[in-house]
Amino acid sequence: MSDFRIRGVVPPVVTPDTPDHELDVPSFERLINRMIEAGVDGLFFLGSSGEVVFSTDERRDQIVREAVRIVDGRVPVLVGIIDTETERAIAHGKRAIALGADALVATAPFYALGTMADVERHFRILHDELDAPLFAYDIPVCVHTKLPWKLLAKLGAEGVLAGVKDSSGDDISFRYLCQENERLGHPMSILTGHEIVVDGAYLSGADGSVPGLANVEPYGYVRMWQAAQAGDWATAKAEQDKLNELSHIFDVTTGVAGYGGGVGAFKTALMLMGVFSSNTMPRPVAELEGANVEAIRKVLVDCGVI
Amino acid sequence: MSDFRIRGVVPPVVTPDTPDHELDVPSFERLINRMIEAGVDGLFFLGSSGEVVFSTDERRDQIVREAVRIVDGRVPVLVGIIDTETERAIAHGKRAIALGADALVATAPFYALGTMADVERHFRILHDELDAPLFAYDIPVCVHTKLPWKLLAKLGAEGVLAGVKDSSGDDISFRYLCQENERLGHPMSILTGHEIVVDGAYLSGADGSVPGLANVEPYGYVRMWQAAQAGDWATAKAEQDKLNELSHIFDVTTGVAGYGGGVGAFKTALMLMGVFSSNTMPRPVAELEGANVEAIRKVLVDCGVI
Amino acid sequence: MSDFRIRGVVPPVVTPDTPDHELDVPSFERLINRMIEAGVDGLFFLGSSGEVVFSTDERRDQIVREAVRIVDGRVPVLVGIIDTETERAIAHGKRAIALGADALVATAPFYALGTMADVERHFRILHDELDAPLFAYDIPVCVHTKLPWKLLAKLGAEGVLAGVKDSSGDDISFRYLCQENERLGHPMSILTGHEIVVDGAYLSGADGSVPGLANVEPYGYVRMWQAAQAGDWATAKAEQDKLNELSHIFDVTTGVAGYGGGVGAFKTALMLMGVFSSNTMPRPVAELEGANVEAIRKVLVDCGVI
Amino acid sequence: MSDFRIRGVVPPVVTPDTPDHELDVPSFERLINRMIEAGVDGLFFLGSSGEVVFSTDERRDQIVREAVRIVDGRVPVLVGIIDTETERAIAHGKRAIALGADALVATAPFYALGTMADVERHFRILHDELDAPLFAYDIPVCVHTKLPWKLLAKLGAEGVLAGVKDSSGDDISFRYLCQENERLGHPMSILTGHEIVVDGAYLSGADGSVPGLANVEPYGYVRMWQAAQAGDWATAKAEQDKLNELSHIFDVTTGVAGYGGGVGAFKTALMLMGVFSSNTMPRPVAELEGANVEAIRKVLVDCGVI
Repeated sequence: MSDFRIRGVVPPVVTPDTPDHELDVPSFERLINRMIEAGVDGLFFLGSSGEVVFSTDERRDQIVREAVRIVDGRVPVLVGIIDTETERAIAHGKRAIALGADALVATAPFYALGTMADVERHFRILHDELDAPLFAYDIPVCVHTKLPWKLLAKLGAEGVLAGVKDSSGDDISFRYLCQENERLGHPMSILTGHEIVVDGAYLSGADGSVPGLANVEPYGYVRMWQAAQAGDWATAKAEQDKLNELSHIFDVTTGVAGYGGGVGAFKTALMLMGVFSSNTMPRPVAELEGANVEAIRKVLVDCGVI
Repeated sequence: MSDFRIRGVVPPVVTPDTPDHELDVPSFERLINRMIEAGVDGLFFLGSSGEVVFSTDERRDQIVREAVRIVDGRVPVLVGIIDTETERAIAHGKRAIALGADALVATAPFYALGTMADVERHFRILHDELDAPLFAYDIPVCVHTKLPWKLLAKLGAEGVLAGVKDSSGDDISFRYLCQENERLGHPMSILTGHEIVVDGAYLSGADGSVPGLANVEPYGYVRMWQAAQAGDWATAKAEQDKLNELSHIFDVTTGVAGYGGGVGAFKTALMLMGVFSSNTMPRPVAELEGANVEAIRKVLVDCGVI
Repeated sequence: MSDFRIRGVVPPVVTPDTPDHELDVPSFERLINRMIEAGVDGLFFLGSSGEVVFSTDERRDQIVREAVRIVDGRVPVLVGIIDTETERAIAHGKRAIALGADALVATAPFYALGTMADVERHFRILHDELDAPLFAYDIPVCVHTKLPWKLLAKLGAEGVLAGVKDSSGDDISFRYLCQENERLGHPMSILTGHEIVVDGAYLSGADGSVPGLANVEPYGYVRMWQAAQAGDWATAKAEQDKLNELSHIFDVTTGVAGYGGGVGAFKTALMLMGVFSSNTMPRPVAELEGANVEAIRKVLVDCGVI
Repeated sequence: MSDFRIRGVVPPVVTPDTPDHELDVPSFERLINRMIEAGVDGLFFLGSSGEVVFSTDERRDQIVREAVRIVDGRVPVLVGIIDTETERAIAHGKRAIALGADALVATAPFYALGTMADVERHFRILHDELDAPLFAYDIPVCVHTKLPWKLLAKLGAEGVLAGVKDSSGDDISFRYLCQENERLGHPMSILTGHEIVVDGAYLSGADGSVPGLANVEPYGYVRMWQAAQAGDWATAKAEQDKLNELSHIFDVTTGVAGYGGGVGAFKTALMLMGVFSSNTMPRPVAELEGANVEAIRKVLVDCGVI
């Protein structure tokens, strides 16, 4: 069983780009420092919204290097080692460990799918070859495999996995996983990767959350976690409801979809708030413009964020 | 419009591994030489069945280097630059060109999906930044985006794409693409990536094929192409029917699926035929064993291949 | 805006069959009376688990007739009018109203899909032609259309829909729907159709639940609803956790899937509990047998149900 | 093994509606007579494009009754008995036989899915209870189950199925089915349900086709069949290519999708050609209007149809 434990709010950090597609280090510093000052319990770099799959290996390394430098030990640094298959994920993991990552986060294999036995071997090999706590990242919308809760619980009990980041959108499977993890002595940290029903995930027994929207509004997520910890579910729900009003930055835009709509909204909000210097997206994704920016500005104003 | 033209049989080359997961160069030489001697018109390395997504960058480079050395100019060398998003594909493309690739093959972005405008920009950027003929690889089962035939035809007419490798399984869209490409003056080489209804794809107007099964039986595919070129469709169909009997190596196994079942069957057949020294699969996929090997042997014997 | 309001626990009633595939009326009476005595707030007949799509029109009528007779006004009777397209659903609705249904429940059209404008017209026509409160049944796993929460909220505000039964498995969309319904003055009764995270749905603002597992254990669902109403979320969670242990009747079987596994488990449990006389399934589904029955018996014993 | 054999072109007949949603019998007569005069080999009523799932039982009966009357024995009449599950399909089948159907066409169960054993039992029960030749209709886009070719071949060899109408879009599975049916002594009539690559399906060994576009242009499909029978594949391809130009009536419209776009285009073309009196669609689908009608008119003019 892994010794690494993490609880609370662990935002997946959005990666800012300069207009010519370099890492925007000053914006990155502002974003990270703001979230740590708000009281988050950890930070997850190179997640799906952290441009991991858009970044060359050199860029991935630069992001981890700057992240470790800026965070400077204030909270644990989790790093995504997301790539198509095992050997490629191992290569990323070795570099991330060398650069100072506290824990690694890996998805199931993707592009070339196989059996669940292949998926199980994948996580076992990563655990064997990488000397760092390993989180399974359950994100079927990207990798097209749902990690079964029984497999995750087994790998947790055996010490292969230190935790799970669940972005599956399957609240039933998540509940079963929490109950089974509890039954097994709670070997894993189970984090919901969603942001809209985090109160419900906490009620289900989650150890924490990885909400992308916390890049924009970390304070509310910290307060919700504290309320849930205190058993004050009415306050937790009220905080979630407020955050959900802000989350309409996702659905007030038109003509965009997927990454450009979701992470594009985060970057645009952070630009309008003065945290980011631009809302540049990684190629081939276009940044939000014109009426879409104004629609997001209106949400931010209505919610009192700017 | 691109000057690069390719017609005929262009097998996607299976990559042999040693039992300790190194590139098995002698097996690779036997496989490549056998296909060229059978009369194939080109070879496609680092395709989906060529372990592209299982291979680290170093292994990818080694495969291309050895491929170029072994082929030695006898047929064109196409190289897959398959990765999640644009910048990563560019990096692969630059290295492949430096190592001697004649043409590059790229999929739509995957893992993080967006709009079709993102997909179009992706191919335009690859064309702009990579000084080699570019093929679009339409493989929705792996990337979860179907490339629309109208977009492909437009990019062909503008010279962005030199061709298309269609592994979409959508014979209707393929037919429309062939007819539209013809109407536009035939700017692209359109290759079917399937192996079971290649005669039908030729009848639909395909310029060639990329059949994985040609790793095992290149002669039949070469004869089918020659028959189709001569308008002898009865012979083309008869050759396809015979190849399809051999293709049951895919469905006589049990307990395997996806890559392990498909490429695993190729590797096992090639091992039983003495072309490969082992049927080792890339991690985390297990190689076929026991009754599965015997079932494949029976198909090979029944078809007179061994 | 509709006057019909329903809150609390509204189980979707499982339909018992005799071994020769007739409606088993005595078992039906035992099941219905047991749930009403446990304190449920309504009953939903001819839902997905009520064999609606397996039943001829004559059988559907028989089920509604017997249901209305047995319930005898003790709780509201909701009836599913599930069929492929509008005219067929209207025909079912007219007969259900004539037989005494208090409210009707309709899915989106299925088999032949179209645009969301078609779906919207479908519900508007049903509302216009059927003189009974109308619930939208959101069940994409069966009909392959997800009803957008913005559309549902609009139809609720206009009085087309009296409520929503959400079996979509999309807890995010469900939360947005609850918040928007509240913002609009709460025109609709919003019921979760799930059974495993009902506590979370209540925390999200649901007006009630339609849990299939309440056929087996209505008491726990009634207690959970009362706890949630009282703001006692710790008790609500504890009740849900206990119910979830019982829900493993779904996953201890082997070789079955879908309807045979889910409703088959309900019927087998009810047979073992003495509520049903047999666990016969509608054709073409086979009933659970042998080791599967014993596995379900063990869950019931472990949970203290028998 | 069934005695019923059918070969050649068997169009799925589009059902014309009056503006007030009644069956438009004069248009129906014109359509049927025109196709029979063009030389089709059979007619399939109440298929997916024949409004089967939009029609009440009374309307279904009316369509079959009129169809049998108009056809008057000139070609075989196949009738779809499409409904969610076994008992409902049996009820439709008994009525269709009584009304004079020569053969019945049934899909896999839908809405409530289960195992492939359930699907197999479904077809066996239909065969046992219905005294008419039975065709399996493989249409996963509507029923969300793909019928495996090995199952179909087995049911054909045992005499359960007289044939298959394949609208699966899976040309690989179709080829395997044709080869296996041949190996087993050709017990079944295998018909492709597609219209765009019918030449390829014939080359694969199909016994015929069920092309919706033959409602608009039956002559080309009849000529293609005759050419294929004569081994004149160049002519077959040329006929298909011409038909495909006409098929752009499907993709010149905007703002429509699914049934409204596909069958809507057929009805609009037939209206413009004077075969139908209106292009009314069944509720809740809207008919094509304005620019969409003009776009279809242009295709018809360009193709010389009007």
